[in-house]
Amino acid sequence: MELLRDATGRTDVNKLGEFGLIRHLTENFPTHHAATFKGVGDDAAILDLGNGKVQVISTDILTEGIHFDLMYAPLKHLGYKSVVVNLSDIYAMNAIPKQITYSIAISNRFSLEALEELYAGIRAACLHYGVDLIGGDTTSAQKGLFISVTAIGEGEKDKIAYRSGAKPGDILCITGDLGAAYLGLQILEREKQIYLSNPGVQPDLGQNDYVIGRQLKPEARKDMVEQFIPKAGFVPTSMIDVSDGLASEIFHICRQSGVGMILNEGGVPIRPDVEKLAIDFSLDPITCALSGGEDYELLFTVSPDDLEKVKYMPDVYICGEVVEKSEGVKLHTKGGNIHDLKAQGWVHF
Amino acid sequence: MELLRDATGRTDVNKLGEFGLIRHLTENFPTHHAATFKGVGDDAAILDLGNGKVQVISTDILTEGIHFDLMYAPLKHLGYKSVVVNLSDIYAMNAIPKQITYSIAISNRFSLEALEELYAGIRAACLHYGVDLIGGDTTSAQKGLFISVTAIGEGEKDKIAYRSGAKPGDILCITGDLGAAYLGLQILEREKQIYLSNPGVQPDLGQNDYVIGRQLKPEARKDMVEQFIPKAGFVPTSMIDVSDGLASEIFHICRQSGVGMILNEGGVPIRPDVEKLAIDFSLDPITCALSGGEDYELLFTVSPDDLEKVKYMPDVYICGEVVEKSEGVKLHTKGGNIHDLKAQGWVHF
Repeated sequence: MELLRDATGRTDVNKLGEFGLIRHLTENFPTHHAATFKGVGDDAAILDLGNGKVQVISTDILTEGIHFDLMYAPLKHLGYKSVVVNLSDIYAMNAIPKQITYSIAISNRFSLEALEELYAGIRAACLHYGVDLIGGDTTSAQKGLFISVTAIGEGEKDKIAYRSGAKPGDILCITGDLGAAYLGLQILEREKQIYLSNPGVQPDLGQNDYVIGRQLKPEARKDMVEQFIPKAGFVPTSMIDVSDGLASEIFHICRQSGVGMILNEGGVPIRPDVEKLAIDFSLDPITCALSGGEDYELLFTVSPDDLEKVKYMPDVYICGEVVEKSEGVKLHTKGGNIHDLKAQGWVHF
Repeated sequence: MELLRDATGRTDVNKLGEFGLIRHLTENFPTHHAATFKGVGDDAAILDLGNGKVQVISTDILTEGIHFDLMYAPLKHLGYKSVVVNLSDIYAMNAIPKQITYSIAISNRFSLEALEELYAGIRAACLHYGVDLIGGDTTSAQKGLFISVTAIGEGEKDKIAYRSGAKPGDILCITGDLGAAYLGLQILEREKQIYLSNPGVQPDLGQNDYVIGRQLKPEARKDMVEQFIPKAGFVPTSMIDVSDGLASEIFHICRQSGVGMILNEGGVPIRPDVEKLAIDFSLDPITCALSGGEDYELLFTVSPDDLEKVKYMPDVYICGEVVEKSEGVKLHTKGGNIHDLKAQGWVHF
């Protein structure tokens, strides 16, 4: 880390990025228990329950002003979303979430009625996904709202999908559609700025229910993991959920699997209305998909032997191919050009 | 909650207290999974692993300015303590901690070197207690440092000690000694105020290593749960760790067990040097024990049949008796007086 220090001998954490930072801070930690067979580094940690089952554990912090803005995120939606994003990490391991713990630290500007709204959203998510709230901590903060959620799931040991299992020749698949959550955020930010400069103006959310819904109340792909994938009868060789953007997730799989990737722009699902909206915002639609994030769709690879199984799955799109690491990570554009893919994601630091 | 509303229809969460708030917010949550057999309300949640074993899960948030002050808490100590306080919740269920997740949200005033200090403390605690760090999230905050730790442990289903199992006639026991952590905090606060008014003055921590150590680097009672209690051959009828103060913990046991309690002042272990220091601060030593908190000792009840087993245990003190609920919660002073015990604890809100 020497090279990153400034003149005062202080290293800015921004220079490492979130993932580099976690790796650096936790690299010297030993493991004491045989049950701990996958530690820091994937969507979730894995504990061996010893009967062919594994437990899958994931945790996230959401902070006001960084991950959400209470000017446009209703507390009920925030409660719902904060649960969903954690469950999505469990599904991304091809496992089923069962329990959550939910902790908050709040400043005294939050009333009981505000917290009731938050917990109504948490409860709705627990009901929809069939998970149990089993604990949590509620404490105070000097400023703002901090949320910490831990999700606990269960899976079959031989069906867990890691980020590290992709092999050259595998087929890259993505569920649903991408880019909408990011455009929803653009609309909410635009209306916030208009409101701030003129509080008398009513927000004009137009015909944008879909993209705003994708931003404020996303869903995790329970259907894929509980129904469609088992019904199709395959196990993804690797899987990750799209939280930071398609490009960032592709790089996670490539780095942890030691492979390269070719992404076909034409295979990336973007709804026509989302494409049009992107252009209205002077944004390239594929950039919204690659770097927007918060879609909570599943990106996975399958063995070429399973091609027939994925080809006709509902809401699954083949969008690329795993290649040798030496071939790099490339985007084949619709126009026939080949570019190096850039890992954008959203760096919070 | 109607009665707590102010003129604007807004209810201040302070009026419910932390425990009332959690109970209120989570009272309508259903349970979906048979494995979830103890939800919100004890030191930790319990999941049935189905082989006579249970998993015990506890989570805490620590926030800068509320739970710790970086003016006198070195980051390495903070890392250590933040792990220990969570492990203490697992031991308080008569279970053994195995894994933790550790998440932080930080403002950009923290350098990599500062985080390395924090993680050195986390690592030292993991090594000392034999637990594995299996995951976590590292993200940014607009201001301050927020820590969220989830601890996962394992216990035998028929040996888990809940808060709810105390029965009239049971004997109340406490480990170690109380009040020191609170007095350590008083010294640190005093020196902070002196430093703030005159930054040239060196802190005078005097001969107070013990109390300052109890505040900055507490230990959880691994020895009790892993060795002394099993060796003595009993299962506590109820157990809780002393985080908010002896009085507050007694009230938790009484409320959840539906019993009353008589606490004998003479049985509450306070070190002579701690007693003297309390008096120097014009504080009543028993008040420091009752309301100080952060001692992380274990308070438990045992069946009178097990009296002989606890009587000669190292570092265990008999300090009271469980009585019928109708008899209330009383303190028998050394002077022979009987007072109603007040649940002070430290209300964070």
